Amino acid sequence: MKHLKLIVAAILVVFAFSLADEGMWTFDNPPKKQLKDKYGFDITQEWLDHVRLSSVRFNDGGSGSFVSSNGLVMTNHHVGAGQLQKMSTPEKDYIKTGFYAKTSAEEVKCVDLELNVLTEMENVTDKVIGAIAGKSGGEAMKARRAMLAQLQQESNEKSGMRSDIVTLYNGAEYWIYRYKKFTDVRLVMAPEKQIAFYGGDPDNFTFPRYDVDMCFFRVYENDKPYNTPHFLKWKTTGAADGELVFTSGHPGSTNRQQTYAQIEYSRDYQYPARLATIKRTIGVLKQFSALGEEQRRRADGMLFGYENTQKAMTGEYQGLLEKNLMAKKQNDEKELLNRINANPELKAKYAWAWDSVSTAMERTKSKFKELTYRGLGGALGGRALTIARYAIESKKPNGERMPQFQDAMVKMTLDNLYSPAPVYPDLEEALMTDRFQEALDILGANDPWVMAVLDGKTPADAAKMYVSGTKLADPAFRKALIEAGEKEISASTDPMIVLARKIVPLGDEMRAWQDKNVSGLIAMASEATGKARFAAYGKELPPDANFTLRLSYGQVKGYPMNGTIAPSMTTMYGLYDRAHSFANHKDFELPQRFKDGVNKLTLSTPMNLVTTNDIIGGNSGSPVVNAKAELVGLIFDGNIESLPGRFLYSEEKNRAVAVHPGVMIETMRKLYDANVLADEIEGITAKPEPPKETPVAPVKPVKPVSKKKK
Amino acid sequence: MKHLKLIVAAILVVFAFSLADEGMWTFDNPPKKQLKDKYGFDITQEWLDHVRLSSVRFNDGGSGSFVSSNGLVMTNHHVGAGQLQKMSTPEKDYIKTGFYAKTSAEEVKCVDLELNVLTEMENVTDKVIGAIAGKSGGEAMKARRAMLAQLQQESNEKSGMRSDIVTLYNGAEYWIYRYKKFTDVRLVMAPEKQIAFYGGDPDNFTFPRYDVDMCFFRVYENDKPYNTPHFLKWKTTGAADGELVFTSGHPGSTNRQQTYAQIEYSRDYQYPARLATIKRTIGVLKQFSALGEEQRRRADGMLFGYENTQKAMTGEYQGLLEKNLMAKKQNDEKELLNRINANPELKAKYAWAWDSVSTAMERTKSKFKELTYRGLGGALGGRALTIARYAIESKKPNGERMPQFQDAMVKMTLDNLYSPAPVYPDLEEALMTDRFQEALDILGANDPWVMAVLDGKTPADAAKMYVSGTKLADPAFRKALIEAGEKEISASTDPMIVLARKIVPLGDEMRAWQDKNVSGLIAMASEATGKARFAAYGKELPPDANFTLRLSYGQVKGYPMNGTIAPSMTTMYGLYDRAHSFANHKDFELPQRFKDGVNKLTLSTPMNLVTTNDIIGGNSGSPVVNAKAELVGLIFDGNIESLPGRFLYSEEKNRAVAVHPGVMIETMRKLYDANVLADEIEGITAKPEPPKETPVAPVKPVKPVSKKKK
Repeated sequence: MKHLKLIVAAILVVFAFSLADEGMWTFDNPPKKQLKDKYGFDITQEWLDHVRLSSVRFNDGGSGSFVSSNGLVMTNHHVGAGQLQKMSTPEKDYIKTGFYAKTSAEEVKCVDLELNVLTEMENVTDKVIGAIAGKSGGEAMKARRAMLAQLQQESNEKSGMRSDIVTLYNGAEYWIYRYKKFTDVRLVMAPEKQIAFYGGDPDNFTFPRYDVDMCFFRVYENDKPYNTPHFLKWKTTGAADGELVFTSGHPGSTNRQQTYAQIEYSRDYQYPARLATIKRTIGVLKQFSALGEEQRRRADGMLFGYENTQKAMTGEYQGLLEKNLMAKKQNDEKELLNRINANPELKAKYAWAWDSVSTAMERTKSKFKELTYRGLGGALGGRALTIARYAIESKKPNGERMPQFQDAMVKMTLDNLYSPAPVYPDLEEALMTDRFQEALDILGANDPWVMAVLDGKTPADAAKMYVSGTKLADPAFRKALIEAGEKEISASTDPMIVLARKIVPLGDEMRAWQDKNVSGLIAMASEATGKARFAAYGKELPPDANFTLRLSYGQVKGYPMNGTIAPSMTTMYGLYDRAHSFANHKDFELPQRFKDGVNKLTLSTPMNLVTTNDIIGGNSGSPVVNAKAELVGLIFDGNIESLPGRFLYSEEKNRAVAVHPGVMIETMRKLYDANVLADEIEGITAKPEPPKETPVAPVKPVKPVSKKKK
Repeated sequence: MKHLKLIVAAILVVFAFSLADEGMWTFDNPPKKQLKDKYGFDITQEWLDHVRLSSVRFNDGGSGSFVSSNGLVMTNHHVGAGQLQKMSTPEKDYIKTGFYAKTSAEEVKCVDLELNVLTEMENVTDKVIGAIAGKSGGEAMKARRAMLAQLQQESNEKSGMRSDIVTLYNGAEYWIYRYKKFTDVRLVMAPEKQIAFYGGDPDNFTFPRYDVDMCFFRVYENDKPYNTPHFLKWKTTGAADGELVFTSGHPGSTNRQQTYAQIEYSRDYQYPARLATIKRTIGVLKQFSALGEEQRRRADGMLFGYENTQKAMTGEYQGLLEKNLMAKKQNDEKELLNRINANPELKAKYAWAWDSVSTAMERTKSKFKELTYRGLGGALGGRALTIARYAIESKKPNGERMPQFQDAMVKMTLDNLYSPAPVYPDLEEALMTDRFQEALDILGANDPWVMAVLDGKTPADAAKMYVSGTKLADPAFRKALIEAGEKEISASTDPMIVLARKIVPLGDEMRAWQDKNVSGLIAMASEATGKARFAAYGKELPPDANFTLRLSYGQVKGYPMNGTIAPSMTTMYGLYDRAHSFANHKDFELPQRFKDGVNKLTLSTPMNLVTTNDIIGGNSGSPVVNAKAELVGLIFDGNIESLPGRFLYSEEKNRAVAVHPGVMIETMRKLYDANVLADEIEGITAKPEPPKETPVAPVKPVKPVSKKKK
């Protein structure tokens, strides 16, 4: 008996190891075998198509899904917050008070939100390979760039859809992804930020959690709600502990396929430098917020963004500092190199690449300061540079332009430039002052860029001069300049445009150095390492994330935490525990309606849940669906233990954090007076008529006629 | 301005460093200066006397306090659990169902509980030093031992009180502590273990926490409740966040004054070995528990004890494996040695000691296996050895006996031997089998002790033979043997006594080796390092804990935890969150009365709190009091981050965990029907008479006449 037991246990260990719930899989290559072996689930093409077409990309960096046939889109509050901020004024602050449109007439159109649905995926690897056949080095790069621009443009014209070039496996595969694009998007419902982001920066990236991080938009076409058969049926009771679940969303980026040299560079250069800059920027924003309520409102969104990034990067950095993680990375690389070196053909083709990456990283280190600290900060600087660059790039042939000015992309670039989103000069000045000061401190007063921007002034005086003198805060002025064309831009005396004209050549110089010494080398070598991995493992391993649609699988599951265990779900009881435990802490104060409404609620309603799904920033707003493709959660975070997942996934403690559908319906119905919305979501199309008068004798309540889920 | 700020900040840092809330202080040497400087609190002798005389020691390893003038003693459920277990039978399982005596007639007398109150402390250092003057080595040890035995015996006779020798600062000070001793102790109230130990092993040693770990006994003298003016006034609202609080209790032991060589020995030998043994013992107990409900009940208390120890030692071991902690210890030692070496007199007296400790540790390592693995396991083995040893030791002169057989201690030893607490043969056999197996595996079949105990049999057969053949489970048999005397014991054919007679000489041999090679050296060297530290720092640093009464100070305060912050208090909302979050997990199931009674409760009632007080095992049951000496909490645990505190205190995250007085009163009144007890505790001596009949017209409710706190 003893021996048999040991054998079974040994098999299970191997099993568990090879079948960790890892991977952000492209929809052309779902993890069929893993799902079958570990969960006994047969994934079908129909299932995949339905989930893909129910998934929505928020182009400013998030994910979402259709949750009704009438174009209702669900995402996180923090994904929608940029739009809420742009719609808000000091008088109606939707971030603070929340928003609910009881009728479609009350829905508010978003300022500049674009949503995409991935409708077609075309593998164009062969065409790209054909274009660079027989070429090498800079020639090959140029040919590839030209072919990609051509393919994108052709697709745009032929399909009439947004067409994006997608590079997978470090360049072992090229695809065109075609998207149905929506620009008429209207706000339907958002709770108060106080409950969406309950627990604030302290609880951010942690679990157990108590957030209602939801936001609902509606997509319109021709001024009518978009009608679609592809939406996720809602399951208010959610998924059970241990149940198989999926997420479908847009993870922004992972660095799992980088070489060890790149990861070392991140650890020793990028992370410490970037974290130091973020820390000072947060200091500036907090100082600014402290000046008054209106300043707080203006800085709020940006402050959230920086604190969020700080906490995420700190968690990632902690991972990089962990010996075990680095040893695992080193080991993985060694194993791959062994496979490559064992095969003479592969060795000849790819073995050189790792050293080339190392060389490129060493070169990058030599210009690290110039590459890192020559930035203007704020919104005005970016807009000025876009205008100055437009004047130069628009004269070049399409294939030679910077990507954002190529025919396929330029409209988006200009739409973004013309955004009516408010620009706050006082905030701009504060941020710019700090960037100038940091550049002065680190690059020194004799750096040509520093000399150009300061022009003999102190950082504060220079920033004041630029911000107070520019008219770029006005979108009409920006549009007029672009439409007036190159000559007008070159002659403009607007101080920000003058500055941009001065520093664009410095940027070009740096870019040329990078192209010559680093980018080409990295591109070729990364492609080679990607192809080497592809040759060794094929599509058994998914490619790094790049803000394209990915499927991840996993299960609802707690984990060991700080000496105890975290449950797989929290309940609304816990929300009130935290509120009363942290009396007098602003991050844990409840919105008034939650204070007043406690007795209306069923406090055992599940609130947030955790799953083993492999996700990362960009997955915010992703639906969690069960094996029947029913909606059982709304991804809004990863736990603190998930942050090193940028480099390496670990199933033991890495968890995705989601809002439970139960708490969304419970709060809509009982606190937000949003039964109409809840009915639409739950697919309740007709409600029983209440009896007209109070019956004299007891009467059985009329049953709902068609309380069926859509 | 900038410079001024930096200076202030630097001062604050020094301040904070030198004034960490560290230390388990003896009542003769309270941290007056620290309290004044950090909290502005002037501690008075009256305050100290009152708190000391309100504090109670549970001699089987815990702490408690008087909370009414009628001898009502509060402690933790897990401190009282040993007695609850001994009182319980399969038919009335107090551990499972809880207990409440509505009247004194219903109170149940404890089986063998002794409580002590520290009434006098006498410094006898000079007498001990006088006794060893001019002597050295073994002579000095013998003289010290004889003097201590004499002093203790004299004190016992003269005072009629329990008199314990107390060694402080590694032997730089000797005291006699005299205790008022209570042996008529009766159970008043205990909740179900399920709520006292809510969260079970997972939540043990962690926070946030949701336990009602309380138990109430009453002390009797001459069959009447003990009347005392020294009890702690109760404050149901507890202490505020940030408030200064104290604990008064009996920390069992700390190793903060050990040398680096001793700590290394702990890290490399003791902890790994002991943890491995505990792990296998827990395995045995779980296997035994799985046999049935009655087996589960029998093993329950022991299983809790082992799991508790396992988690505590794992936390301590983690600390030892942390580079920072070890570096700090090394640094502290270096600093002390620098001070000693800088003073020629001190150098000559003490500098040798550290090397001697290292030598002693090296010698111990050479016999580590024999010293560690020659144990019988279970209760029967211990009892047999006590009887066999008694036969030998009782013939020697008092000063030469092992301490537990000296006149001052022998009664306690025999009382313990005669305890009617049940012994379960099946459990004994399982535990003994595992100890024998472990000894066989590690010491080998040719070890003389292994040969003696196995006597050619397998571990299981040997254990079966001993346990099935012995009558030692019967307290009357044990008593009869002792009273029959040495000759009868030497002739006994009871297999456990036969075994004990065989292995006592092996133990003597090992003890002689230790005395010769290790104990004397360690005793002298430790005394020297203690005196060296005393010479360098005086009483600025408190001595290591040794289960004598200690005062610690601190404040109610949350802490950074797993990426977020832990609050300073939890509420009853959180209890229900955890119960619903962990549906179907036995450790998080609520007792039925908590399930049924949820609507009776005010869920915002504070439940558990954390403070920076420096405590350790043995402090369980300690009162938390505020500056007015009012009761504001009941210590029951430390957080996971506090466990390395055995070696080093760190204020950032080290927290004591306490039950809030609010939840005790709330549950007594609303769930346990224990208003009489709650009234006694809250000092409510008279209650308003309810109006006899329902008044016709509205009438103002009669106000309580004397609802004053005692």
